[in-house]
Amino acid sequence: MSAGTLNRASAFVDEQRLAERLAAMARIGATEKGGVNRQALSQEDAAAQLLLVGWGEALGLAPSVDAVGNLFLRLEGADANAAPVLSGSHLDTQPTGGRFDGVYGVLAAFEAVEAIIASGRRPRAPIDIVAWMNEEGSRFAPGMMGSAVFAGARELSTVLAVADAQGTTVASALADVRGRLRDVPGRAAGERAAAFVEAHIEQGPQLEKEGLTIGVVTGIQGKRTFKVRVDGEAAHAGTSTRAERRDALLAAIAMVQALADALHDAEDIVKFTVGRFDVQPSAPSVVPSAVDFSIDLRHPDSQLLQALGDKVRPICEAHAGVCAVQVTELSTAMSLDFPAPMRTRIRDAAARLDLPHRDILSTAGHDARYLHGVCPTGMIFVPSHRGLTHCEAEFTSSADLADGARVLADVLQELAL
Amino acid sequence: MSAGTLNRASAFVDEQRLAERLAAMARIGATEKGGVNRQALSQEDAAAQLLLVGWGEALGLAPSVDAVGNLFLRLEGADANAAPVLSGSHLDTQPTGGRFDGVYGVLAAFEAVEAIIASGRRPRAPIDIVAWMNEEGSRFAPGMMGSAVFAGARELSTVLAVADAQGTTVASALADVRGRLRDVPGRAAGERAAAFVEAHIEQGPQLEKEGLTIGVVTGIQGKRTFKVRVDGEAAHAGTSTRAERRDALLAAIAMVQALADALHDAEDIVKFTVGRFDVQPSAPSVVPSAVDFSIDLRHPDSQLLQALGDKVRPICEAHAGVCAVQVTELSTAMSLDFPAPMRTRIRDAAARLDLPHRDILSTAGHDARYLHGVCPTGMIFVPSHRGLTHCEAEFTSSADLADGARVLADVLQELAL
Repeated sequence: MSAGTLNRASAFVDEQRLAERLAAMARIGATEKGGVNRQALSQEDAAAQLLLVGWGEALGLAPSVDAVGNLFLRLEGADANAAPVLSGSHLDTQPTGGRFDGVYGVLAAFEAVEAIIASGRRPRAPIDIVAWMNEEGSRFAPGMMGSAVFAGARELSTVLAVADAQGTTVASALADVRGRLRDVPGRAAGERAAAFVEAHIEQGPQLEKEGLTIGVVTGIQGKRTFKVRVDGEAAHAGTSTRAERRDALLAAIAMVQALADALHDAEDIVKFTVGRFDVQPSAPSVVPSAVDFSIDLRHPDSQLLQALGDKVRPICEAHAGVCAVQVTELSTAMSLDFPAPMRTRIRDAAARLDLPHRDILSTAGHDARYLHGVCPTGMIFVPSHRGLTHCEAEFTSSADLADGARVLADVLQELAL
Repeated sequence: MSAGTLNRASAFVDEQRLAERLAAMARIGATEKGGVNRQALSQEDAAAQLLLVGWGEALGLAPSVDAVGNLFLRLEGADANAAPVLSGSHLDTQPTGGRFDGVYGVLAAFEAVEAIIASGRRPRAPIDIVAWMNEEGSRFAPGMMGSAVFAGARELSTVLAVADAQGTTVASALADVRGRLRDVPGRAAGERAAAFVEAHIEQGPQLEKEGLTIGVVTGIQGKRTFKVRVDGEAAHAGTSTRAERRDALLAAIAMVQALADALHDAEDIVKFTVGRFDVQPSAPSVVPSAVDFSIDLRHPDSQLLQALGDKVRPICEAHAGVCAVQVTELSTAMSLDFPAPMRTRIRDAAARLDLPHRDILSTAGHDARYLHGVCPTGMIFVPSHRGLTHCEAEFTSSADLADGARVLADVLQELAL
């Protein structure tokens, strides 16, 4: 090999090795129906992190964990002063999640780094494989906690105080996980990042439908999330008349019904979801005293998203009847576009590898949203069978997964040159 | 005292003693807001039963427990062959229940028996104070398990196999409670009952509104209960379009809304309640895959109740949309009238004591429903402040509670003569 020519890292990506690592990770928190339940900062999450650290050490990578629980594995570069190129995603899943959402981005970065090492030329800048803490937000809401704190978009102290349904705080759960990772050194906050690239399954059916292998992600659809608390009064199901009741459930369903009617468009682009709906005291013969429900609202057009989200509070208030309602916005994320140079780099890498590709908008949120605020960021999608995701049936072929890792390997290699 | 004249037991009822026993019971499972959480076959339920057994033994009453966990305290009568007169209610509460629902009926019977002993004449028939197992049905559904099995209306084996939300069966919870009551002898099944009288708070505002002290209960409103299972498919909140979704929550709320509209009358007599509404997987960014909800439907007119209940399945099916729905009827109890002689006996006792009273229908279900099937049965109501019940704010004055016990004491004394 002459100086000046580059052995492209993509040539060293090993489909089998990547598939085996994914299978090993899928065994941690495996569900009966072939999915994965590995919620943020659980014992399963800790076990997945330990497994990753072990693989990294075998490859000579240096692990570190920052204060919010993001896990990094560093391939040192030739220039000790260069800011690192970051690549990764998350290891946590939804309660009945799949085998690819999140973990694929971490292991694709791992495969890319192993391929870069095998390509024989040491990169100038360090490359950090990263597993962001709590992307999903199902145990501790809202999600993307690790990337948000890394990017300075949320306060560490606020995030540490968030509690799950059992009353366990992030701080406490993090201390447990940290205990199991006690041999991994801490990482200082505020380190620069030269760039971030995240590989992910599409979580939609588009690439598969069109027979394409690579999605060059143009940006991320905006999202506003809310929690709604409806307060009524408990009463006996057999004795209290409707006129006397302050039934929190009937008020809450009137709100959800009205929201579903209003937050809807003929083109079916608005995404409106009520995923949680918790009733108190939850007894068959007691009129509900309170309901807490969640709202997840998305639209690729930021202006429209803003307008739709602004309807939530007045609609809830209009349907509260004799109950009280409190609407709290948990997170507001406008739609964003990844920088053109990063998209070009990904598109060119796919083209060089003769992989059929297209530009595509991410309708799901990702940690890349927050990294986009602090460094040039891009995303690579691979197909997702039938678009099924956040469910146990999630599936992507090993060949597609390896192709995504090939594109990622070449892009990371260039970025770290 | 000459033979032939009767020292009425009511003269020996002690308001203070009854209030103190109620306060002692209210400490077992006390909630922060002044209510009680003492669910069936919990550690708190067992503690309440132990306390009752201790009080009974101090009074010379003989405790026994039958196979389904009903607890009896017997005052022996003069005639060893006479069938016992029963009186009592239940010690279990709703999760955020009050200090009177159920336990008052048990302690009113206890106070009545203590007064009968103090009145100096030993009754001919034995009197059994009884605490029926699991009236509320909030932990193990449906409720009134103990009285239903006692009356032969439900199979013991079926009831023992019912599991709570944590998967604990009645059989297993019962074994734990039985362990704490191991010194209490078992009681054979199938014993006769001469009569049953249950004292209870009204659980409605009528007596208080009219300034009355005693309700002579004419009968019990009928009730049909259902569980509904809605199955859809989990999907990603950001990527799946509405057309692609099978959102179990939106289908379920459409059902509940349609049921609320249909099961409603201008006179506000129909009682329709959805007390439980459990969503799977219950994550903010996952489209719900399944919902389980409960329906509690009541009406004093059995024919109308039948007709209204028959609408439940077709309405649910009509609103299932792309989801699947399964409607299961859990219990059917038609409206019933207590026998006139028992009502007369209660009315006369109240009149003799100069207590303002009226006939009243019980819109709530009670263990008396099942006893009505096997022996002459009646119920005595005392006022319930604002009709608040199945909640922590439940309240009845000590004076009213004592007056109810006075009527009960005289009625039991007569029945056991």
